[in-house]
Amino acid sequence: MKEVYVIGAGCTPFGDLHTRDAVAMAREASFQALEDAGVDISDIDIFYVGSVRSVTSGSFLGNALGVRNKPVTRVENFCASGMDAVRQAAIAVMSGQARIALAVGVEKLRDATRRGLGFRSFHPVFVFGATPPGLFALAANRYMHTYGIGRETLAKVAVKNHRNGAKNPLAHFRKEITVETVLKAPIVAYPFGVFDCSPVTDGASAVVIASRDVAEGLGKAQVFIRGFGLAVMHTEPMYDPSFKYTGFPVTTEAAGQAYKMADISRPLEEISFAEVHDCFTMTEILNYEDLGFAEKGEGWKLIEEGVTELEGKFPVNPSGGLKSFGHPIGATGARMIFEVYSQLTGRCGERQVKNAHTGLAHNIGGPGTVSTVMILSLRS
Amino acid sequence: MKEVYVIGAGCTPFGDLHTRDAVAMAREASFQALEDAGVDISDIDIFYVGSVRSVTSGSFLGNALGVRNKPVTRVENFCASGMDAVRQAAIAVMSGQARIALAVGVEKLRDATRRGLGFRSFHPVFVFGATPPGLFALAANRYMHTYGIGRETLAKVAVKNHRNGAKNPLAHFRKEITVETVLKAPIVAYPFGVFDCSPVTDGASAVVIASRDVAEGLGKAQVFIRGFGLAVMHTEPMYDPSFKYTGFPVTTEAAGQAYKMADISRPLEEISFAEVHDCFTMTEILNYEDLGFAEKGEGWKLIEEGVTELEGKFPVNPSGGLKSFGHPIGATGARMIFEVYSQLTGRCGERQVKNAHTGLAHNIGGPGTVSTVMILSLRS
Repeated sequence: MKEVYVIGAGCTPFGDLHTRDAVAMAREASFQALEDAGVDISDIDIFYVGSVRSVTSGSFLGNALGVRNKPVTRVENFCASGMDAVRQAAIAVMSGQARIALAVGVEKLRDATRRGLGFRSFHPVFVFGATPPGLFALAANRYMHTYGIGRETLAKVAVKNHRNGAKNPLAHFRKEITVETVLKAPIVAYPFGVFDCSPVTDGASAVVIASRDVAEGLGKAQVFIRGFGLAVMHTEPMYDPSFKYTGFPVTTEAAGQAYKMADISRPLEEISFAEVHDCFTMTEILNYEDLGFAEKGEGWKLIEEGVTELEGKFPVNPSGGLKSFGHPIGATGARMIFEVYSQLTGRCGERQVKNAHTGLAHNIGGPGTVSTVMILSLRS
Repeated sequence: MKEVYVIGAGCTPFGDLHTRDAVAMAREASFQALEDAGVDISDIDIFYVGSVRSVTSGSFLGNALGVRNKPVTRVENFCASGMDAVRQAAIAVMSGQARIALAVGVEKLRDATRRGLGFRSFHPVFVFGATPPGLFALAANRYMHTYGIGRETLAKVAVKNHRNGAKNPLAHFRKEITVETVLKAPIVAYPFGVFDCSPVTDGASAVVIASRDVAEGLGKAQVFIRGFGLAVMHTEPMYDPSFKYTGFPVTTEAAGQAYKMADISRPLEEISFAEVHDCFTMTEILNYEDLGFAEKGEGWKLIEEGVTELEGKFPVNPSGGLKSFGHPIGATGARMIFEVYSQLTGRCGERQVKNAHTGLAHNIGGPGTVSTVMILSLRS
């Protein structure tokens, strides 16, 4: 396998960005990433943009960045769109078709713009009323019933991620909360209260990927892409009567691909920290198990025992996660790679994970249908 | 560059497929392509699906094909979506991340289904009333004025493509027409009558790409991907007051990339035939010039002199083109690769191009914003 490197990353603040449309956000994140990498837009050979709803065609980046006469492709894969854009950029560099690639994830959800016609109608899921909170609440109820945990355990995920996010200048919500706040919040879909749910957020993030030669030439050959995986299911699991609801097999498959490529067999020992898809508090606990950080039915212990706290043995979502950093759908996966890169290069200030050498990023998208995993490591 | 091969292709009939939804069409084209390639679905390492409107996320192919635990990515790039899917599949095989890849293009336009919520509202172009016929008619009027040609010349493009399509069992319209029919048809946007416009069509097409090793092992190393290009513009040219309307620079750029990769300097001599994006009769003539088949302002001579007829020196759209084969947006680019592969392997019956060794496929998408070009050659 050809070794490819992350050489720069950028990210807008996430939140309620009423003054910035998708174009402005993509531009801001991209030029930050280019500046960080020390390359010019004209040095980029190939571009990918991941977005579920806010972008039509690759020409979006043509507009946003003033790119012309270069290949730009839009990829869409539900909540995995941003990380898939990064993955395609890595594949393009591996193929030799590009020496340097830019991947951008972007989503405008807080209001309707010319390019983002609003969130609601985009998928039959929402048209039929089977909203994400309702669907993931089924998983939460089933898990709580099966393994005997209460809402307090879920709440601790939110408390941890808000605590981390409070240290993150780019996060949507920078406010610590207590278990009591989570438990007393209005219920969205039992057992989820408002604080069990990730918010509706605007944002964009961008990552520059380069071949080993280029990265070495720029003095930027620190962080390489050690492995990645993407898996889809042959059904929409959460609508399938046979679905077990106590985990997402698609995550396990994507992780299996990434671990194989990265030659990792004991993730909890060989990886320093992870950014996982905590769209709901319950999801983070399921992710622990699906990603092999805990045995089946024991993921909740990691949160109860403080293992995944910023100061714990295996920090999860040091960024604040979807819960606190926010969740602009197509941006989230690219934002996670931004975070992992920032952590590995020691730039995270108050939320810095100590001695981080390897980080994992993970998305799950749709009704349990798609998952991406990517692993970055410091070059030894 | 790692040489990659097309080893199989499939295509549904194009037309008014009221009994088949996007899933059924994608399945039909895919399994045809797999059978043609002599491989099983389980042999495919990576999947791409191109669609503008009928597909949400890579899990669409999970559903359609019963794929699970494999990477599937949806790409979207206006009318270039299908060819971009083929291009991504080629890049993935070049990268070594896949030995065999399947690319599918699909679009359901004739009626609304659960997965295709209808055509009209998908882009601001249509919301604002600047429809494709209106926009491309601006180009036609400008070209006719500048170079002094009449509607009769445009009509001859439609007559040629219908003549070819009448020989194509998969074409939407299999009926020869006359210049008189074209000229007397109701006007859609002057100078375009109904017969100057490509139809609204359902359809899917699929292509199997493999590494040289795999292709040789299967005895299928006949047709290789010799070059490709994809370019976007930094504006939406057809809305730009400075746009000249007598050609699409984005096509010239995409072709330049492909010619460079394929080491082609005299396209008209080195290429045997082409499938070009004749969304309107005028577009085909502009394509001749933009692709370097004719000098600026002289493309119309190729049609007047019969050069691009099936029996001419340089056949263009032997399939019948978008005009007669039909234009299911995201499917069209993959359908072109199906046609070029079918021609190069001598399977086209009545519409077979004689002594074809190299074929070019071309899309233009959006308001002049994106173009793809791909060149396939017989292995010498």
